[in-house]
Amino acid sequence: MQFTRFGEKFTAYSGILQLMDDLGNAVAGSGDIIMLGGGNPSHIAQVQNIFRKRIEQILANGNEFERLIGNYGPPQGPPAFAEAVATLLQQTYGWHISSENVAITNGSQTAFFYLFNMLAGEYPDGTTKRILLPLAPEYIGYADAGIAEDIFATNKPQFEYLDEHTFKYHVDFESLPIDESISAICVSRPTNPTGNVLTDHEIEKLRHLARSYGIPLIIDNAYGAPFPSIIFEKVTPVWDENIILCLSLSKLGLPGVRTGIVIARKEIAAAVNSMNAVVSLAPSSIGAGLALDMMRTGEIMEISRQLIQPYYEKRAEQAEDWVWEALTGTPFFLHKPEGAFFFWLWFKDFPISSAELYDRLKQRGVLVVPGHYFFPGLHEEWEHKTECIRMNYTPEEGKVRQGIRIIGEEIKRAYAEK
Amino acid sequence: MQFTRFGEKFTAYSGILQLMDDLGNAVAGSGDIIMLGGGNPSHIAQVQNIFRKRIEQILANGNEFERLIGNYGPPQGPPAFAEAVATLLQQTYGWHISSENVAITNGSQTAFFYLFNMLAGEYPDGTTKRILLPLAPEYIGYADAGIAEDIFATNKPQFEYLDEHTFKYHVDFESLPIDESISAICVSRPTNPTGNVLTDHEIEKLRHLARSYGIPLIIDNAYGAPFPSIIFEKVTPVWDENIILCLSLSKLGLPGVRTGIVIARKEIAAAVNSMNAVVSLAPSSIGAGLALDMMRTGEIMEISRQLIQPYYEKRAEQAEDWVWEALTGTPFFLHKPEGAFFFWLWFKDFPISSAELYDRLKQRGVLVVPGHYFFPGLHEEWEHKTECIRMNYTPEEGKVRQGIRIIGEEIKRAYAEK
Repeated sequence: MQFTRFGEKFTAYSGILQLMDDLGNAVAGSGDIIMLGGGNPSHIAQVQNIFRKRIEQILANGNEFERLIGNYGPPQGPPAFAEAVATLLQQTYGWHISSENVAITNGSQTAFFYLFNMLAGEYPDGTTKRILLPLAPEYIGYADAGIAEDIFATNKPQFEYLDEHTFKYHVDFESLPIDESISAICVSRPTNPTGNVLTDHEIEKLRHLARSYGIPLIIDNAYGAPFPSIIFEKVTPVWDENIILCLSLSKLGLPGVRTGIVIARKEIAAAVNSMNAVVSLAPSSIGAGLALDMMRTGEIMEISRQLIQPYYEKRAEQAEDWVWEALTGTPFFLHKPEGAFFFWLWFKDFPISSAELYDRLKQRGVLVVPGHYFFPGLHEEWEHKTECIRMNYTPEEGKVRQGIRIIGEEIKRAYAEK
Repeated sequence: MQFTRFGEKFTAYSGILQLMDDLGNAVAGSGDIIMLGGGNPSHIAQVQNIFRKRIEQILANGNEFERLIGNYGPPQGPPAFAEAVATLLQQTYGWHISSENVAITNGSQTAFFYLFNMLAGEYPDGTTKRILLPLAPEYIGYADAGIAEDIFATNKPQFEYLDEHTFKYHVDFESLPIDESISAICVSRPTNPTGNVLTDHEIEKLRHLARSYGIPLIIDNAYGAPFPSIIFEKVTPVWDENIILCLSLSKLGLPGVRTGIVIARKEIAAAVNSMNAVVSLAPSSIGAGLALDMMRTGEIMEISRQLIQPYYEKRAEQAEDWVWEALTGTPFFLHKPEGAFFFWLWFKDFPISSAELYDRLKQRGVLVVPGHYFFPGLHEEWEHKTECIRMNYTPEEGKVRQGIRIIGEEIKRAYAEK
């Protein structure tokens, strides 16, 4: 069977495919696997209960359920939902947006597929442009999203050492590869995989840089404020006509419904809607239906700040202790957990590769994601790329603790082989 | 704002965008509009009731609802669902398929976006290949789905006249533009927009042709058997390793959940799964969840044959009478309604274009789809392309009848202008 270049590129074995395969199989599997690999949010009982109540309300409200499942929405998603999102952000942050600045997609990943390919690749004038990732490690899902080859210009980070085993990445503004061939800047904040949160100062500098080049700054806010607010630092959400802010309902607890939200200047929101029409007619209505009321009332922010944020912060603190317990005696570094729900572990001068470590851990029933997938567009040799893993701390506590214990054993074994 | 070639192509004003915009606005709108334009299925009370019961069962069954909304599925969709689909088709038709032959997408449109671009466009060896559409009119949603330019080679139909106002298209095998530059053949059966159902003989010939060129035959079965079975002719569903059969839950009554199903050789099903991972991580779980039980038990076929098929057949017969009533006295032709839920009306030697007719009808509150959108890839001048409209007969009866009356008035007015 022969495929086009497009087909070959998109069916090549990708990091995100391995990740999603592992995740799906673990979820469907026997329960023996300790799944620290995926990005599945925890099932927080109080939050789940709110969604259960909401579907019960929908079912009790005349034919609301029937309309939800039985009607195509328009390509921009259910209008009432876009309006509720716009109103919430306007009232909370004072941003000047209307529903025309909002686009809904079948998950955030779809939004990035659209945005990257709208902005990176060949332009009508024959030039080729790329997306600047100012700080790698960066999200694994970006890596294969480009239809054109090599759509990223990626920058290595600066390291700040906070204590003997804790570090934090910063944007290295001195070495940013930016010029006229860059068509957008993109960061995830909080960063998946590292849990890094770019400081307000860093965001301001990137915003200024984007503006000075007349290009958009894409902020992947899948874990950020105002929802799901899995962010442990005091930072200010920002938006202006030059920012494309991507939000998601997944980490609120709704990954199964696939709902992404794009906030952007009208022209870009309209472009996302056009792509929805061609690629999928319209986005699914279910996520928007489940979240409509909490978006209208603002309850989504209370849920985020009072239930979701404290839950993950506590889990991070707990699991950080277990990491120290399991890894002390090795030259490990943990990126400071500032948000999202991952630990980014760096094993300095590691004798084996992170891919080999992945295999060994998988054999012991523990799934993580090898770190080398998180450097999209960074082609240069750099040992750091194969010295890290991403693990989440969202499963049930006993499993996380046991998983970390096994990771500790394998790390010690690997260093002992040197 | 500048976009890439990809961005320009996908954000250009497309027929499917107009259609989905009209549809969404009509659904959200005041209720004064008579929406005969979109492809929204009727809300059949008995069928809706089954889905309502199903969600109630899900809610009553421990944490099934929480798992449905709260977990990412794997890229191939929920494994239990793929297995149920495979088993159903195997037992019903004797096809040799397993769950590895099944891929789930966020709606059928997404499947076509993947398949067309995997198969049409530039190949690694530098050649460019296209999809053969052996019979236009063909589905509007195909038109803009190609990332490459000009991905279709399209063939004009033969006309069979069944009575003074009824006709049927056939594949004109004599003029099929097939050669080594064709990488797949694609037909919708029943055909959207015409309600045509290719005969078993035509399908056999296309199947033979595809095999002789070593290329797949894609059959868009969104309206066909075994579900939703909106097909009024006795025809045999076929599948083999060389056929890519695309099914959907939309016309069963679930367009809001966006669930498409691809049945294909394992290599192609795997390729669709890979694309899911990159483009959207995983498909939504909701449609699969709602339809799982009826797929397992085979109830989905009874629902289709006993509730859905008779419902639309009756609507077609009724509405056909209204069409004759409203249009007699004009040289109109109705394509024989053999399946799907559209009428394809042809106004021979029409003095105005179908686009102008669309505008006039829209001003009178009746939305249809102008026919010229349904000839993807047919670039030659041909008056037939602008002499037709597609209308559905799925809304409430009074509205359909009134809409047809208004269409009749405008057609008579237009002919009188000659």
